[in-house]
Amino acid sequence: MATRDHGDPGDAPSAPPPLTPVVDDTRPSAAEEARTIAASTNTGTLASLTATGDPWASFITYGLLGGAPVLCVSNLAEHGRNLAGDPRASIAIVAPATESDPLANSRITLAGEVEQPSGDELAAARQAHLDAVPAAKYYVDYSDFTLWVLRVQRVRWVGGYGRMDSATAQDYAAAEPDPVKPSSAGAVEHLNADHADALAAMARTLGGYPDTVSALCTGADRYGLDLKVTAERGIAYTRVGYAAPIDSLGELRKAAVELTHRARQG
Amino acid sequence: MATRDHGDPGDAPSAPPPLTPVVDDTRPSAAEEARTIAASTNTGTLASLTATGDPWASFITYGLLGGAPVLCVSNLAEHGRNLAGDPRASIAIVAPATESDPLANSRITLAGEVEQPSGDELAAARQAHLDAVPAAKYYVDYSDFTLWVLRVQRVRWVGGYGRMDSATAQDYAAAEPDPVKPSSAGAVEHLNADHADALAAMARTLGGYPDTVSALCTGADRYGLDLKVTAERGIAYTRVGYAAPIDSLGELRKAAVELTHRARQG
Repeated sequence: MATRDHGDPGDAPSAPPPLTPVVDDTRPSAAEEARTIAASTNTGTLASLTATGDPWASFITYGLLGGAPVLCVSNLAEHGRNLAGDPRASIAIVAPATESDPLANSRITLAGEVEQPSGDELAAARQAHLDAVPAAKYYVDYSDFTLWVLRVQRVRWVGGYGRMDSATAQDYAAAEPDPVKPSSAGAVEHLNADHADALAAMARTLGGYPDTVSALCTGADRYGLDLKVTAERGIAYTRVGYAAPIDSLGELRKAAVELTHRARQG
Repeated sequence: MATRDHGDPGDAPSAPPPLTPVVDDTRPSAAEEARTIAASTNTGTLASLTATGDPWASFITYGLLGGAPVLCVSNLAEHGRNLAGDPRASIAIVAPATESDPLANSRITLAGEVEQPSGDELAAARQAHLDAVPAAKYYVDYSDFTLWVLRVQRVRWVGGYGRMDSATAQDYAAAEPDPVKPSSAGAVEHLNADHADALAAMARTLGGYPDTVSALCTGADRYGLDLKVTAERGIAYTRVGYAAPIDSLGELRKAAVELTHRARQG
């Protein structure tokens, strides 16, 4: 993960480092995070170019064909004219908020060029848009509306403060949305409500913080759990990985039980 | 309000026209709608230009100095470098959703050029950003963060399907956010729950639909009420204006009572 130093005036809180090795900090790649965010909603903001090359931001709806956003916009609207005039475009997508601080939430930018689908891809693109945006049935066949597929060339993911990376177009296209994260809120809540001791044990023996006082699960995905650790030395964030990646929310319970056993043996 | 014809394939539902004159359909101007939307949140999406002139969409937070968005972005982030390289920018802002169909909700684009504030404006811009984005206190003084004020030159407002218009920079700067609309949800709910007869009377004698069967209030602002009318001829939308504009939610009750009296005399 790319990290860079801010020009720190010196008073930012700092997290204590782990005291023992983090056993498995595997987490979704930037490409996987981006695919998960793209699949999490049907609205975003398009940046297109006006006739004079100025950047124009506008709200849009989209469906997904693989990871490629499919737009359906009117040629009567400014962004429709912009795309017809210059295919360069990018789309910013914000995942549904989980944190009250807006910049702590996840978002992506997908950039490339738009193209009108044709042949078999036209029908697939039309259906992909309709699947994601049911109300489009009222206008998708209007003669002034055009379907555009964004051919993604650049992917930028920001997961919150200090968590960000780029992904190649190839990695983005090949990745899958996380099958666990979008529906894991209830399971995470349950872990925190009923298994606080198990989470603390995980942080102590698998997460690198033997001085853990308590640990809160802040997220679950196909590879493991994110933990916020209250250690004797301060607040830190770490990661515990399942024995193997899981493919559905239904497998999370078993994976968490295995993590707990392993943590208590440690 | 600017409206244009879509290339209608012929099966779109059409609303019956009023049978009598609409007494007062004054509604907020596009400039007022835009100021209201800008004041309704602290997040938006920036469109900036990369070094090669490509459009780059990215999530941002903002405060408002008058109607001008004030951003605080890191020069380490792509959008920060973009703004430093070319000041042309626009910001799309989406009002908090009131409709499940995303395109039925209100949004704006503010376009112009960014400028670093200086002198007295610097302190005011810094405070405007901090007032809207409290967490910015952790980074606003980092040396890699820059405050930018968007000098708004163009304003585009979309209020939902078929409701859209542009506003001049002058009108936008001179307008005020609506003092009633953002906090009117409870009052609108009360009107619908307890005063259905009064709303139907308003639609019949003031709103142009003497064949009203029932009417639902769908919004309130400083000038009047939006009504969704079920008439004998079908569903229509109309507007009833208060005797005079109001300046706060507290004045809405009196204005609605006056509307009811007037409607029943009609």
